[in-house]
Amino acid sequence: MRRLSRSPVIAIVGASGAVGVELLQCLERRRFPVSALRLFASPRSAGRKLAFAGRELPIETLGEASFAGVDLALFSAGSDVARRFAPLAVAAGAVVIDNSSAFRRDAAVPLVVPEINGARIAEHRGIIANPNCVAITAALPLWPIHRVNPIARIVLASYQAASGAGAQAVAELLDATRAYLDGREQPPRVLLHPAAFNLFSHDTAIDPATGYNVEETKVMAELRKIFAAPDLRICATCVRVPVLRAHSAAITIECTRPMPPEAARALLAVAPGIRVVDDAERNYFPMPKDASGQDDILVGRIRRDLSDDSFRSLALFVSGDQLLKGAALNAVQIAEQLL
Amino acid sequence: MRRLSRSPVIAIVGASGAVGVELLQCLERRRFPVSALRLFASPRSAGRKLAFAGRELPIETLGEASFAGVDLALFSAGSDVARRFAPLAVAAGAVVIDNSSAFRRDAAVPLVVPEINGARIAEHRGIIANPNCVAITAALPLWPIHRVNPIARIVLASYQAASGAGAQAVAELLDATRAYLDGREQPPRVLLHPAAFNLFSHDTAIDPATGYNVEETKVMAELRKIFAAPDLRICATCVRVPVLRAHSAAITIECTRPMPPEAARALLAVAPGIRVVDDAERNYFPMPKDASGQDDILVGRIRRDLSDDSFRSLALFVSGDQLLKGAALNAVQIAEQLL
Repeated sequence: MRRLSRSPVIAIVGASGAVGVELLQCLERRRFPVSALRLFASPRSAGRKLAFAGRELPIETLGEASFAGVDLALFSAGSDVARRFAPLAVAAGAVVIDNSSAFRRDAAVPLVVPEINGARIAEHRGIIANPNCVAITAALPLWPIHRVNPIARIVLASYQAASGAGAQAVAELLDATRAYLDGREQPPRVLLHPAAFNLFSHDTAIDPATGYNVEETKVMAELRKIFAAPDLRICATCVRVPVLRAHSAAITIECTRPMPPEAARALLAVAPGIRVVDDAERNYFPMPKDASGQDDILVGRIRRDLSDDSFRSLALFVSGDQLLKGAALNAVQIAEQLL
Repeated sequence: MRRLSRSPVIAIVGASGAVGVELLQCLERRRFPVSALRLFASPRSAGRKLAFAGRELPIETLGEASFAGVDLALFSAGSDVARRFAPLAVAAGAVVIDNSSAFRRDAAVPLVVPEINGARIAEHRGIIANPNCVAITAALPLWPIHRVNPIARIVLASYQAASGAGAQAVAELLDATRAYLDGREQPPRVLLHPAAFNLFSHDTAIDPATGYNVEETKVMAELRKIFAAPDLRICATCVRVPVLRAHSAAITIECTRPMPPEAARALLAVAPGIRVVDDAERNYFPMPKDASGQDDILVGRIRRDLSDDSFRSLALFVSGDQLLKGAALNAVQIAEQLL
């Protein structure tokens, strides 16, 4: 594994996107040691400037020669950009942390949530993949349980915010809602279906062989890879809801042995990266409003899954900031372990 | 069982509420034979008028003597009102169809979805209960499968509209969203948590013994009663989402024998009260926007539950108008069978 110098030169690819902007803020907020920061995006954004540590940094057009002298490249662009440019960055001597799905299922590429499988970072050959946001949001609160009582089965229904489809989708949800309230028709442009006061099955393509969409297929495959549990049986239903930036999920899990809810709650209470929000008396549980802007994944509604009378199954509800732990924060945490 | 005269005198209790207004419209739209219609509500609404069949009918204050001469009383008020006044209506000679939860679990009271267990109507002793809206929305598309291949287990995560908490909750969602877009703070009044671009665990009380809230407990108990399947194992997670009036749910079911998705789709395609919306190519599935104002429950995303390798389990997604089939329409359909 290639390690980073103490104060690396960092490139952000896709700097103007929803995740790119959060990457800048995470680096600054966590006082990541940066000797120089270069911002890249498509020609559309080139020339704009973004604030970092009190300075204004220009966005440059990404090109094949962009990675000369770069030690760490944080990619938050699409899979096509990652497939084309990440190998160039590696060839130029950089370590790449890629937020797209391009390399996540590549057996030679670690897929890392640092609190779970940070040790895998050492196996990288230039590229480390940052998991799908729903996979991270589900994996982190399930891991402390899985470690002591392996999870054999997961059924997950997501409630995904517009931010997962990018900054333009967030703007579309806001605009469409304003239009709805004003009684105006506004056809969708970024999302496939109307967003205002509506929800819909995640609008990625459906695999005709399985009936699952691309998002669900990612979540299922990535959870198995992150947990290094190839036999873990998972059913995911991914749904877009009219929320701005935090993803939630209703999850039931079946453990190998009986798993009392109180024991799960005790494990989760001391686990890193998550916060138990499970106040039955005040009816206060994880919600996007509270998860937005927070580093921790919130987990609550921890109770027996009453549909399994073996006492091995639990139900829980999670909310996590899709752009932070679901994307930028996780990438920066991986980078911190490379130092 | 008491039958209705060919053209009964009808009372609507809770006429000014979200469901009450829909009851009026369902009666009119379905040309229900009405000889006279009397509208009752709390003193707060008394004196207001509601339109029915081209006339303006006054809302009267509900009192103990309100049911003299009434043949059919449609209750869409709370459980407390139903517990106090439904027995008075029955004593006065009326048949009561109650939309509250007051009598649903009473063994002597039929809990009816006409397409499923309409024959139970004949067993009534004055009161017939209209099920919880999520229970109806889930039961109707599961029944055609359950009939031929009994369902042993259900895991359900709901996406419930504001309408389920009444007209004031719908107004609150609209107002809170407007306030959010204008950058104003607006604390919740009707709902327990902020509604704008947020979602939260259903805000009914949590049973400390089970960890399930009242809504989930209703859904689980009522599905068992509607299906006359006391051993049916169910796990429900009920969540309020920022949608105005249609409820959705992600459901997985485990059948007794293998159940190919195509076989389920074929059964659902010809079943009454539901419409299969399952267009993988166009990525078009049930959503609240399309279910709102529709009599049918929409069902789609019909596929194998990949977390069960016995091929006995399916996943599906449903959306249904909470105020129509989830409430008023189902009540009027029960009344039609009483004629």
